[in-house]
Amino acid sequence: MKGEIIISELVIKNVKVIGCNPNGKNLLTVKIETSDPSIYGLGCATLHQRYLAVKVVIEEYLKPFLIGKDPRNIEDIWHSSYISGYWRSGPVLNNALSGVDMALWDIKGKMADMPLYQMFGGKTRAAISAYVHAKGNSLEEVEKNIRKFISQGYKYIRCQIGEYGGDFHNTKTPDNLPKGVYFDPEDYMNSTIELLEYLKNNIEDKVYFLHDVHERLDPVRAIRFAKELEKYNLFYLEDILPPENQEWLKMLRNQTAIPIAMGELYSNTIEWKSVISERLIDYIRIHISDIGGITPAKKIAAVSEAYGIKTAWHGPPDLTPIGMAANIHLDISSINAGIQEYCAINETMREIFIGAPEPVEGYFYPIDRPGIGVDIDEEKAMEYPCVNELPEWTNARLPDGTSVKP
Amino acid sequence: MKGEIIISELVIKNVKVIGCNPNGKNLLTVKIETSDPSIYGLGCATLHQRYLAVKVVIEEYLKPFLIGKDPRNIEDIWHSSYISGYWRSGPVLNNALSGVDMALWDIKGKMADMPLYQMFGGKTRAAISAYVHAKGNSLEEVEKNIRKFISQGYKYIRCQIGEYGGDFHNTKTPDNLPKGVYFDPEDYMNSTIELLEYLKNNIEDKVYFLHDVHERLDPVRAIRFAKELEKYNLFYLEDILPPENQEWLKMLRNQTAIPIAMGELYSNTIEWKSVISERLIDYIRIHISDIGGITPAKKIAAVSEAYGIKTAWHGPPDLTPIGMAANIHLDISSINAGIQEYCAINETMREIFIGAPEPVEGYFYPIDRPGIGVDIDEEKAMEYPCVNELPEWTNARLPDGTSVKP
Amino acid sequence: MKGEIIISELVIKNVKVIGCNPNGKNLLTVKIETSDPSIYGLGCATLHQRYLAVKVVIEEYLKPFLIGKDPRNIEDIWHSSYISGYWRSGPVLNNALSGVDMALWDIKGKMADMPLYQMFGGKTRAAISAYVHAKGNSLEEVEKNIRKFISQGYKYIRCQIGEYGGDFHNTKTPDNLPKGVYFDPEDYMNSTIELLEYLKNNIEDKVYFLHDVHERLDPVRAIRFAKELEKYNLFYLEDILPPENQEWLKMLRNQTAIPIAMGELYSNTIEWKSVISERLIDYIRIHISDIGGITPAKKIAAVSEAYGIKTAWHGPPDLTPIGMAANIHLDISSINAGIQEYCAINETMREIFIGAPEPVEGYFYPIDRPGIGVDIDEEKAMEYPCVNELPEWTNARLPDGTSVKP
Amino acid sequence: MKGEIIISELVIKNVKVIGCNPNGKNLLTVKIETSDPSIYGLGCATLHQRYLAVKVVIEEYLKPFLIGKDPRNIEDIWHSSYISGYWRSGPVLNNALSGVDMALWDIKGKMADMPLYQMFGGKTRAAISAYVHAKGNSLEEVEKNIRKFISQGYKYIRCQIGEYGGDFHNTKTPDNLPKGVYFDPEDYMNSTIELLEYLKNNIEDKVYFLHDVHERLDPVRAIRFAKELEKYNLFYLEDILPPENQEWLKMLRNQTAIPIAMGELYSNTIEWKSVISERLIDYIRIHISDIGGITPAKKIAAVSEAYGIKTAWHGPPDLTPIGMAANIHLDISSINAGIQEYCAINETMREIFIGAPEPVEGYFYPIDRPGIGVDIDEEKAMEYPCVNELPEWTNARLPDGTSVKP
Repeated sequence: MKGEIIISELVIKNVKVIGCNPNGKNLLTVKIETSDPSIYGLGCATLHQRYLAVKVVIEEYLKPFLIGKDPRNIEDIWHSSYISGYWRSGPVLNNALSGVDMALWDIKGKMADMPLYQMFGGKTRAAISAYVHAKGNSLEEVEKNIRKFISQGYKYIRCQIGEYGGDFHNTKTPDNLPKGVYFDPEDYMNSTIELLEYLKNNIEDKVYFLHDVHERLDPVRAIRFAKELEKYNLFYLEDILPPENQEWLKMLRNQTAIPIAMGELYSNTIEWKSVISERLIDYIRIHISDIGGITPAKKIAAVSEAYGIKTAWHGPPDLTPIGMAANIHLDISSINAGIQEYCAINETMREIFIGAPEPVEGYFYPIDRPGIGVDIDEEKAMEYPCVNELPEWTNARLPDGTSVKP
Repeated sequence: MKGEIIISELVIKNVKVIGCNPNGKNLLTVKIETSDPSIYGLGCATLHQRYLAVKVVIEEYLKPFLIGKDPRNIEDIWHSSYISGYWRSGPVLNNALSGVDMALWDIKGKMADMPLYQMFGGKTRAAISAYVHAKGNSLEEVEKNIRKFISQGYKYIRCQIGEYGGDFHNTKTPDNLPKGVYFDPEDYMNSTIELLEYLKNNIEDKVYFLHDVHERLDPVRAIRFAKELEKYNLFYLEDILPPENQEWLKMLRNQTAIPIAMGELYSNTIEWKSVISERLIDYIRIHISDIGGITPAKKIAAVSEAYGIKTAWHGPPDLTPIGMAANIHLDISSINAGIQEYCAINETMREIFIGAPEPVEGYFYPIDRPGIGVDIDEEKAMEYPCVNELPEWTNARLPDGTSVKP
Repeated sequence: MKGEIIISELVIKNVKVIGCNPNGKNLLTVKIETSDPSIYGLGCATLHQRYLAVKVVIEEYLKPFLIGKDPRNIEDIWHSSYISGYWRSGPVLNNALSGVDMALWDIKGKMADMPLYQMFGGKTRAAISAYVHAKGNSLEEVEKNIRKFISQGYKYIRCQIGEYGGDFHNTKTPDNLPKGVYFDPEDYMNSTIELLEYLKNNIEDKVYFLHDVHERLDPVRAIRFAKELEKYNLFYLEDILPPENQEWLKMLRNQTAIPIAMGELYSNTIEWKSVISERLIDYIRIHISDIGGITPAKKIAAVSEAYGIKTAWHGPPDLTPIGMAANIHLDISSINAGIQEYCAINETMREIFIGAPEPVEGYFYPIDRPGIGVDIDEEKAMEYPCVNELPEWTNARLPDGTSVKP
Repeated sequence: MKGEIIISELVIKNVKVIGCNPNGKNLLTVKIETSDPSIYGLGCATLHQRYLAVKVVIEEYLKPFLIGKDPRNIEDIWHSSYISGYWRSGPVLNNALSGVDMALWDIKGKMADMPLYQMFGGKTRAAISAYVHAKGNSLEEVEKNIRKFISQGYKYIRCQIGEYGGDFHNTKTPDNLPKGVYFDPEDYMNSTIELLEYLKNNIEDKVYFLHDVHERLDPVRAIRFAKELEKYNLFYLEDILPPENQEWLKMLRNQTAIPIAMGELYSNTIEWKSVISERLIDYIRIHISDIGGITPAKKIAAVSEAYGIKTAWHGPPDLTPIGMAANIHLDISSINAGIQEYCAINETMREIFIGAPEPVEGYFYPIDRPGIGVDIDEEKAMEYPCVNELPEWTNARLPDGTSVKP
């Protein structure tokens, strides 16, 4: 019979955005308060470079849409919010929705008095491996940083020489160049190969390297680069191509078996669907708050499992520890989780985000607190206000001044 | 020789957002001022449902990025702005970029003392046909509205019975339904077929009908519906499927030759690329300010031409006359322009937007003023401030309460 | 309102063909004169080997078709001219149309008082890299010529040993061979590999080499050759296959990531459409006047951009500086321009074509004069009349006497 | 041993172009004279709309290339001529080459004292059916013309109402339309369906109808039209789409089994290759002199046979009886010849072209004279000089003034 059991009513009373910048990144946390004063949820809506737009979407559009709704209907809220402005998806709207979605899952877990990974089916592994970033301006500096991570127990290390995408030298350029972060593709490729050759010869520990191309190469050059890197046995190669050109992965897959990870820039369903079903990648690296939160991430993990692809959720510095904890709950409970990216956090972040997850000897262990398991000290957060600035590094240019994808 | 001729310097001095709501829609206009006080440009950045987010992106991010740049370098500004926040595309970001892009083309045209259609290669037709929307709650009311349009000279008329997507009646529903705009797919399909049958039997004028499904049907039902409508010889069927499910168009194209128009929701390159090169549609109906303005629209027109597809740029009420004029410049100059959607504007809009284009006997004629050719009365605009409200109609639900795409 | 602003009438008054041969090539320039004596346009219609046919098409067919038409309606003139003889496309007809199309764009730019690259969206780079041709009959001679180019600032150099396609030696041939330019595929491949190996070991400057196969190899041999060249890291490999056999590129793309450039022989829409949308090439090298001028070239650039392919417009000696300038306007304004081929011009050409573009330290800079920006001294041109002769080099034959594509 | 048998030398001595216009069409005949005064050959190089360009190519380029060559080496001459100007294919160059190629086959047949169909393998049928064109401005007039053809023994009749592509009426058009032959797609489709319905009800003889769309419809409309015509059991539907859009045939083939004939506009290898190997058509209707003559036509017939496709060589009024005879030799000797188009010739043509083939009771019988079997009276031909004029009918436009393919 319908309606026989009366569930005591629970409604959303408030939706707040808490911004802070404790690490040079504008971090946005959504807090959803309910009619039960003891129950609230927290989610990550961070979009460092456009945080004010995300904040406006949450405060001006999602908040009035959500107040009064039953926070337990996560799936319905996700779908009805997604289409509430007719035009949908994309950065900004997805990040805002993600903050809400995570906060609702946090509430759900707290109501069940269960950590999210338990809600999602429990442990599929004792812990998930983390990978970290080692870089430096010389081969020796990179080596030194790698050795430090090895000593801390890490076995997966992303390596890079110079700044994002390599240096710019020995190239005759035209006059009248516009401002920008200049990038020479051939210099970058050569110096990266030199680095990997050096590491192969100098690091004897049993560790695995990763590398991030940051989508700056034109397609055929990217494919050649991937083929040349195949012999270094990378754990994976990140963002070999921008999503706008990812159909070229078909050609790459015909020529090399180097593991490919992509997805941190995805913000549209159609971007991940074909690369997964055509098996053009090996690791889906989606930034959870850029595709709308835990609800779609769980589904993407399921689709990936069907096609033999693993997850490697994006874990950059512009992510709250709440977002990182969401990643880890998925990592622990998904049979096809592959690895977890991690960028070390500072003491201030630990003070603001109570219970921020950190790896132990290279592993993230299950978070055994109800919900997401990370709380926020709002007063402390207010001491580190957001800063509106334009990123320099995205303004990448070739030696002749042409704008390229960062 | 390099630098032989010195062109006097021209830089962007200011970027303003002018919001107004003269017709129940929040219309956003971007105004770019230059170091030459006589030269400024205007563009449309309208995203009615999330206008505050667009405004923030322009004022807080694009404005500081643009000030000091040469406004003549439109292509470079488009690309470098597109990636300036790393995450890119999608509603909000694209609408903001569109406002800037159109304003730069307006400046370009004014510098050349040429209407944009002349910059783009001149007239390919004497005028472009417009189509209008006729609806009503009864067959007779729809008919009456159609006859009014016919008497005004229109030959292409979009028809709809009931509110968006049809009525909701004769359906037994469960208790405890959430709030929403309810929609019964079978009722909708039946009433639409009844309408088209009625029009076939009652309207003898030589006119062509269009119909907009508004993407509310599930895929196989959508395909069946398209097949049933084939015999009514529609000019085209709009938005038969949501972009998230548009791969189903392959099945539809195997079974019916009903003309398909899609694209008003596109906000990502990858959404339009495959439907065009796989010839899954006949008319690309992109909302220009949702994909970033005139610069990408011209390229999409070129790609569409190569594959035998026509343009039918989105022309809803939530569009400034500046945006409509941009559509018309493309319509007049693109060999593969097919038709132009038009929603009548009121007297207030004509006062605010000086030179707002309007059809004459069903045709938009070339706009023969420099640049885009529409100016704004900023003081008048301020009398009609934007209103932040949540749209009701997007919250569509099936009879059992399931959220569906609007 | 229709017709509200009366633009003073402008019509085409005359269409002339100016032929000259200042460099061993029959160069054809189209001059379009208008009802405004101060406004005329110039375009390149060069088809060295069949120039008399192009001249006839312009003078006897396009001229009467065009006189009296409004020169501003470039897109309409392009399409109506294209089909004016029913059979269309191909060399001769396309070259003739190209001369007209460029001249109309020259007029458009002059009317706007803007260089064409500004009409097309402004600068996307400070300058475009040029590549030049180094050849010689010995390794040392090729090296010497390369070093000369390096000293002039060039970084991209096309290399060749022997005459087109390599020498013919050490091969036992049958008696009674017909006349022709003989070519031994294995000798050619071996000598080219020897050259690239030599350059790798002897040139330490940071320069990039290109090589042109000139479509002389049969398909599977071409694919093997491409694979063998992959390790020399060419900037690109030109014309590895004739267009008649370009479907074999699919096999090549499954096996090698060597950058492929093709297109100088294309004269039909269908030739470029599939290689671009199937991503079978990396650089589209169309000869602009062989596909009908700037109007189609801009569209091909847009289609190429969508698919991640760059432009490298053909820049041979049989091209007027007007045509080269058109290339450069596209190079400067297209985000996906990759490189510009260049063959040095002599003093006489500089006297005839006033403002002929030339690279400075390996770069072509923007041409900052209205329109195309190159004028012609008609009297000087008449001193160097065209010469009708049959090219020898196209008559290529295998050692047994078989005719092969040049 | 090689060279043991001395073949007496035979060389080309002269190549002449004979133009005449006995029927409102500029007909070009190539005459090749040899070192044996008794042996000469004739070929058709007609390209009515651009005949002067074809004439120039033959006289200025092919003639000097050919003089002194052995006329028996047809295949070698075809290939070396094809590439002799580097850029190749397309109208003009192919028509010129065709004139030469047919003349060489005529010589070959005369040397063997055999009709060409015997050289090609002899009779595969007693005679080939011809189809003729019936048109009129009223249903009754078309009917009358059909009945006349039936009385003459024809069983295959192409039908058309109004002028090419239908009339233009009942359509409100914009002001300021450019000159052109206006065309309303819906009027055309409706009137054609009305005609076929009328014929179905009024003609009881056992005859088959054909219809030529003349490629004027946009793709989806063309497919709908093809589907609607399926029930009239046409022998075939000609030129449903322009070659530039022929990839749409894939969609058409999924939805209808109406027989499709295409090819009269082909002038490039790549145009026919894919439609044949993908079985997108049923009849290949190539205009032999537009693809280079008998040599390629025989190969296209062979490829078509491999894929189950029949030939239906183009037989318009702008074709010499020499070209028509070449068609018939192919029709008689090719196992997969399907039908032969025929437009009646006048008495003057019969006087100029001695032995011009004509159908008898709807059939072309084998031509039993050596070679092609049609001679020319050069003096008579000179009485009907060519006339340089611009065709009106190709300048087709939609009701809004847009240029469309004819």
